[in-house]
Amino acid sequence: MARGRKIYEGKAKILYEGPEPGTIIQYFKDDATANNAEKRAVLDGKGVLNNRISELIFTRLAGIGLPTHFIKRLNMREQLIKQAEIIPLEVVCRNVAAGSIAKRLGLEEGTQLPRSLIEFYYKKDELGDPLVTEEHIGAFNWASPQEVDDMISMTLRINDFLAGMFAAIGIKLIDFKVEYGRHFEGDTVRVILADEISPDCCRLWDMETNEKMDKDRFRRDMGGITEAYSEVARRLGIIKENEAGSGADIVSIGGDK
Amino acid sequence: MARGRKIYEGKAKILYEGPEPGTIIQYFKDDATANNAEKRAVLDGKGVLNNRISELIFTRLAGIGLPTHFIKRLNMREQLIKQAEIIPLEVVCRNVAAGSIAKRLGLEEGTQLPRSLIEFYYKKDELGDPLVTEEHIGAFNWASPQEVDDMISMTLRINDFLAGMFAAIGIKLIDFKVEYGRHFEGDTVRVILADEISPDCCRLWDMETNEKMDKDRFRRDMGGITEAYSEVARRLGIIKENEAGSGADIVSIGGDK
Ligand SMILES: Nc1ncnc2c1ncn2[C@@H]1O[C@H](COP(=O)(O)OP(=O)(O)OP(=O)(O)O)[C@@H](O)[C@H]1O
Ligand SMILES: Nc1ncnc2c1ncn2[C@@H]1O[C@H](COP(=O)(O)OP(=O)(O)OP(=O)(O)O)[C@@H](O)[C@H]1O
Ligand SMILES: [Mg+2]
Ligand SMILES: [Mg+2]
Repeated sequence: MARGRKIYEGKAKILYEGPEPGTIIQYFKDDATANNAEKRAVLDGKGVLNNRISELIFTRLAGIGLPTHFIKRLNMREQLIKQAEIIPLEVVCRNVAAGSIAKRLGLEEGTQLPRSLIEFYYKKDELGDPLVTEEHIGAFNWASPQEVDDMISMTLRINDFLAGMFAAIGIKLIDFKVEYGRHFEGDTVRVILADEISPDCCRLWDMETNEKMDKDRFRRDMGGITEAYSEVARRLGIIKENEAGSGADIVSIGGDK
Repeated sequence: MARGRKIYEGKAKILYEGPEPGTIIQYFKDDATANNAEKRAVLDGKGVLNNRISELIFTRLAGIGLPTHFIKRLNMREQLIKQAEIIPLEVVCRNVAAGSIAKRLGLEEGTQLPRSLIEFYYKKDELGDPLVTEEHIGAFNWASPQEVDDMISMTLRINDFLAGMFAAIGIKLIDFKVEYGRHFEGDTVRVILADEISPDCCRLWDMETNEKMDKDRFRRDMGGITEAYSEVARRLGIIKENEAGSGADIVSIGGDK
């Protein structure tokens, strides 16, 4: 499919104009960044894995009636999505304390939280994506109260769905981050799930060993990153059992660009 | 009045057992700290000024029907208060961007906020009093939803009252921080305003000159701190016009300990 003009190059993905107005092609790069891009690397095959994992998750979420931007996967690194006006908030849902909340509130990493917690972070790299409250969101008009409610209820549904899906394959969902956008269709606007859901934006621990199968391996210099992402893809049935489990295998499946 | 056992020595005040069960004597020290007690000083007369200013404000707030811990002032540095179970949250109300919110959200100091904002910070010096959301407050049971609602509506009333009171004396209320506690009376518990309200926990700018008349003078090494607090006391009518305006003057009024 012919790609249009480049719209935006982010840290992990590139957006191109899509074939129809209102569509975008989302290209998954192999680039990994952490600590607000202070740390960078290229991880061979990560983009291919995330494209496939995110496709599977978005497709299944659509299956439970959750509105998403996903239209279809185009090839190994690209998917066609609906253009949305991104709400400048990262919505984080946590089941177990890890990362910033552990540090912030003095909780030991791995502590079960009393209940699933939703947090909003203002998407602004220059400010280091600060935690914000609904007061800030309302006062600065980043989202309407209705949109906040929609994001909360959708995020809780996603949490339940993903927790179930990962539990079925021996993985514990510690936390994840999602982004939402406003999708305009004629006279109506509605909030839809945008961006991606992949091991780049989830914390996933093996249920038996507690081994990390997500981007924390990169943040914490643990190595074995694409191997871990491949293992997630393998357990999800994206990489077939007999195709084995390294990032390179899936890369070789189809025509990559 | 005979002081009982010392209950707690904080950064700015000491609490002693009061004469009756359920009462406390709150003693105002001259100590000033900033930056989570990294910076310290003794400011001659500050405790005396804050005791008087806080007395005046709590008395006036009681006058509009706001429940507070204040019973009466005992002497230059002490007041008798009702014992409360302090809710471990600092409740901040902001009208104009200054301090941490300016830095956090990239706002220029002095920018009028779109509306008055309420924020909660978890009272925990070891963690640097982190900003928290109602999600955290609920999940960790620091306060019930009803208590959060009570604190929000009381803080908004205090904001309106103080904004009016300070406007009348040529001072702009930029922001302030309050603490609440649970007061048990027989079978009933209710949330009451506790701690203090003084230039230690408000940002107060002169309306004409924008000069700071609060603890930021100390935080930012601007000097003239007790002079500024005295000027606030003078405009509030606590120090009489002919008594002039330095911290020392008021100290000399009564028998201090
Ligand atoms: N459906 C969509 N319509 C428009 N923009 C989208 C859509 N889905 C995701 N985006 C945006 O595309 C970009 C994806 O790129 P990438 O994830 O690499 O960004 P990033 O470098 O992480 O920066 P950011 O901090 O903005 O996420 C993000 O800015 C994301 O908000
Ligand atoms: N009515 C009350 N009953 C019980 N405790 C109170 C009451 N009013 C205030 N306090 C508590 O008394 C202490 C006052 O001391 P001070 O303000 O010096 O504390 P601090 O060093 O600032 O520490 P903190 O961070 O706890 O405020 C605070 O811990 C405050 O929460
Ligand atoms: Mg991104
Ligand atoms: Mg205090």
